[in-house]
Amino acid sequence: MALLQSLLPAGPLHVNGDRLTRRLEALRAFGGGADGGVTRPAFTPDDVRARDTTAGFLREAGLRVRVDAAANLIGHAPGRDPGLGTLVLGSHLDTVPGGGAFDGAYGVMAAVEALQSLHDQHRRLDHAVAVIAFANEEGTPDTSPMFGSRAVAGLVDEEELTRPTADGRTFAEVLDGAGGDSARLHRARWPQGSITAFLEAHIEQGPVLESAGARIGIVEAISGRQTAEVTVKGVAGHGGTTPMEGRRDALVTAARAVLGVRELAGPSGVVRVATVGQCRVLPGAWNVVPGEARLQIDLRDVSADAMDKGLARLHALMDHIAADTGTEITVTPMQRVAPTRCDDRLRKLATATAESLGHAHLTLPSGAGHDAQWMSRVAPTGMIFVPSRGGVSHVPEEYTAPEDLVAGADVLLNLLLAGDREPRAHR
Amino acid sequence: MALLQSLLPAGPLHVNGDRLTRRLEALRAFGGGADGGVTRPAFTPDDVRARDTTAGFLREAGLRVRVDAAANLIGHAPGRDPGLGTLVLGSHLDTVPGGGAFDGAYGVMAAVEALQSLHDQHRRLDHAVAVIAFANEEGTPDTSPMFGSRAVAGLVDEEELTRPTADGRTFAEVLDGAGGDSARLHRARWPQGSITAFLEAHIEQGPVLESAGARIGIVEAISGRQTAEVTVKGVAGHGGTTPMEGRRDALVTAARAVLGVRELAGPSGVVRVATVGQCRVLPGAWNVVPGEARLQIDLRDVSADAMDKGLARLHALMDHIAADTGTEITVTPMQRVAPTRCDDRLRKLATATAESLGHAHLTLPSGAGHDAQWMSRVAPTGMIFVPSRGGVSHVPEEYTAPEDLVAGADVLLNLLLAGDREPRAHR
Repeated sequence: MALLQSLLPAGPLHVNGDRLTRRLEALRAFGGGADGGVTRPAFTPDDVRARDTTAGFLREAGLRVRVDAAANLIGHAPGRDPGLGTLVLGSHLDTVPGGGAFDGAYGVMAAVEALQSLHDQHRRLDHAVAVIAFANEEGTPDTSPMFGSRAVAGLVDEEELTRPTADGRTFAEVLDGAGGDSARLHRARWPQGSITAFLEAHIEQGPVLESAGARIGIVEAISGRQTAEVTVKGVAGHGGTTPMEGRRDALVTAARAVLGVRELAGPSGVVRVATVGQCRVLPGAWNVVPGEARLQIDLRDVSADAMDKGLARLHALMDHIAADTGTEITVTPMQRVAPTRCDDRLRKLATATAESLGHAHLTLPSGAGHDAQWMSRVAPTGMIFVPSRGGVSHVPEEYTAPEDLVAGADVLLNLLLAGDREPRAHR
Repeated sequence: MALLQSLLPAGPLHVNGDRLTRRLEALRAFGGGADGGVTRPAFTPDDVRARDTTAGFLREAGLRVRVDAAANLIGHAPGRDPGLGTLVLGSHLDTVPGGGAFDGAYGVMAAVEALQSLHDQHRRLDHAVAVIAFANEEGTPDTSPMFGSRAVAGLVDEEELTRPTADGRTFAEVLDGAGGDSARLHRARWPQGSITAFLEAHIEQGPVLESAGARIGIVEAISGRQTAEVTVKGVAGHGGTTPMEGRRDALVTAARAVLGVRELAGPSGVVRVATVGQCRVLPGAWNVVPGEARLQIDLRDVSADAMDKGLARLHALMDHIAADTGTEITVTPMQRVAPTRCDDRLRKLATATAESLGHAHLTLPSGAGHDAQWMSRVAPTGMIFVPSRGGVSHVPEEYTAPEDLVAGADVLLNLLLAGDREPRAHR
């Protein structure tokens, strides 16, 4: 059998591109809107339906399917050498509200397609292989992002499960309602050393590949991320009878905060990007001076030091604005994801694989966070990008050309084969 | 009988203060929160329950009760002289979200109490009398304020009824679901001349009476109000991968707009007060550069000319910010309520009544809008205020001392009697 395999053509294999793009389009229906956008937050009925449909694809690819305690969907096939670890491919199926059809779903469909292509060609690897569709990569207003990959890496704080969500349930109840098992969340963890390599394909979500005319991006590092919630407490009052002087209007104060956060990035700033993604006003009525405003803030950089400085400046900025406006401002740091370097060996293998397939490629950092950040804590991790038209993502217009989608899946497939053949350095 | 009445003591009558304050407290339960605040927007189950409970009070006061096509609650008693018009007292039962127990409800309970005091003392007036609890004074995110009083004045635009609301129904369906009759809305209108006088008691919602140590305010004019919705359209994108330069962030633009609106009032401004009460962000997620932001704006002044200038400046301000930020900003004027002067004769009668009762009083303008604004289009209108502790309203801390509540109801009762005895100038 080993002799027979070594006699097979040595050139790269190819995926079934039609099947890949067809399945990706099929997933768009779950949470899809009239504008082509997709609203499929984690644990919603649409998210669960997308997961169920993907489970069917995994079975077609010859994999054994289960949902783990973190509501991750896992397809698994044993390898020929039970002494080896598992090669894991994956990404996520959930989207932001009003997002696109490619962010996350592409990586899962590319992984399914790579394994089904092997299955179609009766190729069995020495390593066991698994595809994971990670739960809740994007996060929701009530839950922290990258829940599924953090659970696999054993990095979920049990306190998270007790948090209330907008519909009055705890996060544990939401998770269990979506097929998870909050009481046995530790079972979702993969032991250190059990994963030989983790590989994730994803759309770039930025303009670099398109601008350079490259089809494949090989990720060298993933930006770290610091999120924080800022709560401004002013004094509510009637909008018609409360004199202007003496008002402590929480929204007016929040407006100054929004403009200040922008200056944490850019020429005079310290981090690469700084975004206020949400502003909620309480009570929020035509004729009431706002008494409270809540901002959701996101700072990113590839340097941990820059992120520390960004958070320190955020605190100082808000202290200054609070003192100046007579309001009370609380800064609550939420999630901290450290910047991550990808595995050097896998990066070189990916570069060689893209070369062998004849695809223009370049090496770049990732501006967005990914499940790969957390998987890198428990396994050597590699990540490849395909171009995003116009550099846009998290919007209905998010788009990657079919030939780029197929090229990325071809690289993933052949990188998997190369990883399987590698000297067993990671065994 | 007329002879007998003229023999009754000529001094002022008094209401049953315990019953008044007890009923006002009872209404707090409908939409009441743990913090003492009340959230009872129009047409909600809590609003309808408050109306049903008030209907019971009206029956106790000897009135015939009905709900009109605009979902106004009306209690009515005929007068001794069928040739005379009706003296109408009223205010509203709905509240803003997180509002207090006195705004609106006090005026209705004071009116009920005035009529029940007459009923208890077997006093029948020459004029017919009515109490109206007007529907939807405050307005909601989907509906325009002072709906019920505009319907009584015949000033509802039929287009309003077709507007969609957040729960997917039209406003007509919401109205009908709350006991209204949208198809026959014209029946809610009272003919010109049918109302001899309209009298409204209300909390001041500002600091003037408390500061002056006065118990009764006699309103000379009600501020006009211009509301507008401002929609900022930027370009959404991924918060991690969209470079800072070139971002067209709708929330950053909206923040500039919020700070600019504040300057429409105050030392360098043109209107008395300018408020942005609500800011909504789309899509509104941690990691998405906001693509759209919607602001709700409220400008007020006692001068129609100042209001015109305020709206013109708002347009100019937004044009400037849009050009400067590369975003698209739309200003949609919503409701315009003209400033209103109260009826001089009723104002003098109210002053004499407060005098006769020995209550410290003063004359002042109203900063807030009231149903009286619309009733003044069809009837001579008078309005009295009682003090608001700390000048605050539309918040859970809204409070008026029981002795002030009783004083206001006593003035209302004796003003009603004085109006009934007046030479028939308004007949």
